[in-house]
Amino acid sequence: MNGADVLCDVLLANGVNVCFANPGTSEMHFVAALDRKPEMRCVLGLFEGVVTGAADGYARMTDRPAATLLHTGPGLANGLANIHNARRARIPMINIVGDHASYHLELDAPLTSDIESLAAPMSNWVRRIAGPADIAPAAQAAFRASLMPPGIATLILPADAAWGDASPVSLATVELPLSPSVDMSVVRKIAEAIRAAPGRAGIVVRGLAARADALEIAGQISAAMDVRVFGEVLIARMERGRGRVAPVRIPYPIDAARALLDDIDVLILVGAKEPVAFFAYPGKPGRLVREGCDVLTLAAHGEDLKAALAALREELGVRPSRQLPIATAFPDESTPRGKLTDDAMALLVARRLPANAIVCDEAVTSARRYFALSAFAAPHDYMMTTGGSIGGGIPLATGAAIACPGRKVVNLEADGSGMYTVQGLWTQAREKLDVVTIVFSNRTYAILHGEMRNVGVNAVGENARRMLDLDQPALDWVSLANGMGVEAARAETCERFDALLDSAMSRPGPFLIEALI
Amino acid sequence: MNGADVLCDVLLANGVNVCFANPGTSEMHFVAALDRKPEMRCVLGLFEGVVTGAADGYARMTDRPAATLLHTGPGLANGLANIHNARRARIPMINIVGDHASYHLELDAPLTSDIESLAAPMSNWVRRIAGPADIAPAAQAAFRASLMPPGIATLILPADAAWGDASPVSLATVELPLSPSVDMSVVRKIAEAIRAAPGRAGIVVRGLAARADALEIAGQISAAMDVRVFGEVLIARMERGRGRVAPVRIPYPIDAARALLDDIDVLILVGAKEPVAFFAYPGKPGRLVREGCDVLTLAAHGEDLKAALAALREELGVRPSRQLPIATAFPDESTPRGKLTDDAMALLVARRLPANAIVCDEAVTSARRYFALSAFAAPHDYMMTTGGSIGGGIPLATGAAIACPGRKVVNLEADGSGMYTVQGLWTQAREKLDVVTIVFSNRTYAILHGEMRNVGVNAVGENARRMLDLDQPALDWVSLANGMGVEAARAETCERFDALLDSAMSRPGPFLIEALI
Repeated sequence: MNGADVLCDVLLANGVNVCFANPGTSEMHFVAALDRKPEMRCVLGLFEGVVTGAADGYARMTDRPAATLLHTGPGLANGLANIHNARRARIPMINIVGDHASYHLELDAPLTSDIESLAAPMSNWVRRIAGPADIAPAAQAAFRASLMPPGIATLILPADAAWGDASPVSLATVELPLSPSVDMSVVRKIAEAIRAAPGRAGIVVRGLAARADALEIAGQISAAMDVRVFGEVLIARMERGRGRVAPVRIPYPIDAARALLDDIDVLILVGAKEPVAFFAYPGKPGRLVREGCDVLTLAAHGEDLKAALAALREELGVRPSRQLPIATAFPDESTPRGKLTDDAMALLVARRLPANAIVCDEAVTSARRYFALSAFAAPHDYMMTTGGSIGGGIPLATGAAIACPGRKVVNLEADGSGMYTVQGLWTQAREKLDVVTIVFSNRTYAILHGEMRNVGVNAVGENARRMLDLDQPALDWVSLANGMGVEAARAETCERFDALLDSAMSRPGPFLIEALI
Repeated sequence: MNGADVLCDVLLANGVNVCFANPGTSEMHFVAALDRKPEMRCVLGLFEGVVTGAADGYARMTDRPAATLLHTGPGLANGLANIHNARRARIPMINIVGDHASYHLELDAPLTSDIESLAAPMSNWVRRIAGPADIAPAAQAAFRASLMPPGIATLILPADAAWGDASPVSLATVELPLSPSVDMSVVRKIAEAIRAAPGRAGIVVRGLAARADALEIAGQISAAMDVRVFGEVLIARMERGRGRVAPVRIPYPIDAARALLDDIDVLILVGAKEPVAFFAYPGKPGRLVREGCDVLTLAAHGEDLKAALAALREELGVRPSRQLPIATAFPDESTPRGKLTDDAMALLVARRLPANAIVCDEAVTSARRYFALSAFAAPHDYMMTTGGSIGGGIPLATGAAIACPGRKVVNLEADGSGMYTVQGLWTQAREKLDVVTIVFSNRTYAILHGEMRNVGVNAVGENARRMLDLDQPALDWVSLANGMGVEAARAETCERFDALLDSAMSRPGPFLIEALI
């Protein structure tokens, strides 16, 4: 056996059995090794941004790493933006980046580049494999690094390490340490702070604290102690919908975010970071909490967030049996009609969402009210592009569908963002994934028009308009989808959109709806 | 005025008047400044790989830098693969990467990343602008760095440097030093080496040595002294066609390349690097020349290559008036008929090429004989993806067409490679560029099948096949092109293909031909 075989074996022994890939010549021995392991599911992306974004979606839904297979420095570079998003989602991922044979590097062949320098900014852990004998320990370390915080583990695999002779190794499953136990002194301090600020405390949840069971505890605390519960601006994953506790998402626009947090004196982070402005604006602060707000960490990513919330509940004397004031149906039963609008689409999607669906939201400005309007949809998982780098949505939906066969994935996609990794539609077609892509086709980078106004430009001229608008020519998403083997249709009215949704939700396989708004 | 205005002014003062862009929020002040400068042509790409690849194509045809505008680390990352290709083509480029305001970085907002680490591997020069007052000197230094070797200059523009108050600056054009003069001792040594190895010397040309005038000198030396003239494996740009000296391209397959160079005792580099194997293969050498071959540099990239060739000609006593043995018509007049093949397409394209066309060749295996078969086409420029990172072709053609209005651009594109930056078709439609894209649709990464055989795998199993083939579903390039506003048609026979070519070559604006092979 060779090094590549050992790498496959170690991955499989640890349950890493999905490999999103776009290989090249330097990875051929690894491809040959994968070919000998039918238990590894290999999923081709026609661009590396699809590969890494799909691995992100897979990990968000399974809490386990997928492997990615990328070809040298440029192949990694193509995948970096979605690795960046994944790193910000703090999910596990094992990137395998093929490189030239070690002795070939000094010749500076055309594909040579400094892979370590490229990998470092978006990885939490990087290691170049030293040779065939180093493959097993390196792969085991990568697996461990992916699942304890850090998260993004990047392994550089020289071709001669992959093709070199290797001995079979012990394939014991890597042992992962237990999460640290809850620090009761922190819990007591935070309970005191909550008691001292009635009606003026908030909890920000993320990661495992944004799952239904942990949210229920947060909701009990919220109801008993008048504490608000917030989700981050960009939500990596949240279990929500009818009958579940519904955190308020901190809005993206800086003024709205600051207004939301303006009367919070104590902000408690549960797996979350302190919310900050997405961008700096002249004369505006970068922190979103008001001056003097006490920001306290109950538990950090990687710690037992649910146990920490339970300990806080107990410390506060809140009974676990406490009934939550949760609504169970949409407050407004009227059905949108006529010309499509953002809000009408949001409501119609929320109404049609099947139970246990997975919603990916990369519709940026078009879906800005979707989160609020869908709180009463059937129970579902919700996820966003977390690093602010557009192009996450289609791949994320692809990976989530690979992770969760039998669940419908609904991807709310902006036209500008969708074009970044449009190639992912082909993977959805090839893998026959149950993904409904809804393109909010407004033919502009609408968010940037807003930001131009923010910098004081109200009359946009020709040069700016040509950098901010996607018209001339208009994109035809039905043709694009068909070109990649995905059935598609277009809607301009609520009635047509709703009928397409109904049909798309009830049929298997991918479907795309282009909604002209 | 603000820093962004100063940056525009310095670029324009130095003739940098094309900006390929995909901006984001942190670049809004720069976008607003560009909006005040209608003399700057702003060209939107719907993905950053289009932006940077187009800047490469523009520079190849003009020998001048375009600016690119990229949004923070992930935006740069998306453009890196084609910056890598551009760096290997050794062309000038000025990348402007917007970043957060300097004081905002410490908050680690979602889009924060280590831009310097990302930029370094693919840039020859990197500088973070220190503040508004640093913009003018930094931009001038970037312009200088782009045009003397190094080549790829990356400027990081913090938002607060762009929006900060700045004073108008002197807009004197940056002075560039003259190319170093020819080193006659080197010329004499090389002339001696050629005389000592009759019939066993070769010249490798690239850059300005691959232009028609310099090639004519190389051809005169070749004819008089029995010296062969070679082009590199991946040609950045060559002026060729009927009536011009036609170097032999060093082939990509390692065995063929070594066979070609096997009887060369003296290899003379004119702007070129010593040819090496694209990849390492077990048991095969990395250098392509045989053991003991003398590799000598007549002149390096950035030196006056044409003058060096002229000095060598003089030193060798070759008369400039010497008649070259150049053929002026296709040797074979028969017209391919029936089912399309790679070679039939190559011949038909070569025959239909209008005078002064620009050919981008990213058809990888499908066009492996195109270069040889098109030596007798009408005079044209020829360029390839130089760094081995696929996805260069569509953007390269886009940038070349922006650079050369009035010249027909023909892009020979593989389906696998074309999908990487397929978004570039939209820019061709928006800018109404005279680009004919010919997709060699073989529905596989054919080169990788070859490389699998090279590693000893002859029977490809399900896992490998699913990573190497683009079928299931087949891509429909006509739909894809139509979806981005580009007219398109499909051909399966030589007759149909030739008729489409005829029509595409004679109409303005972009057109795509999907050729099923």
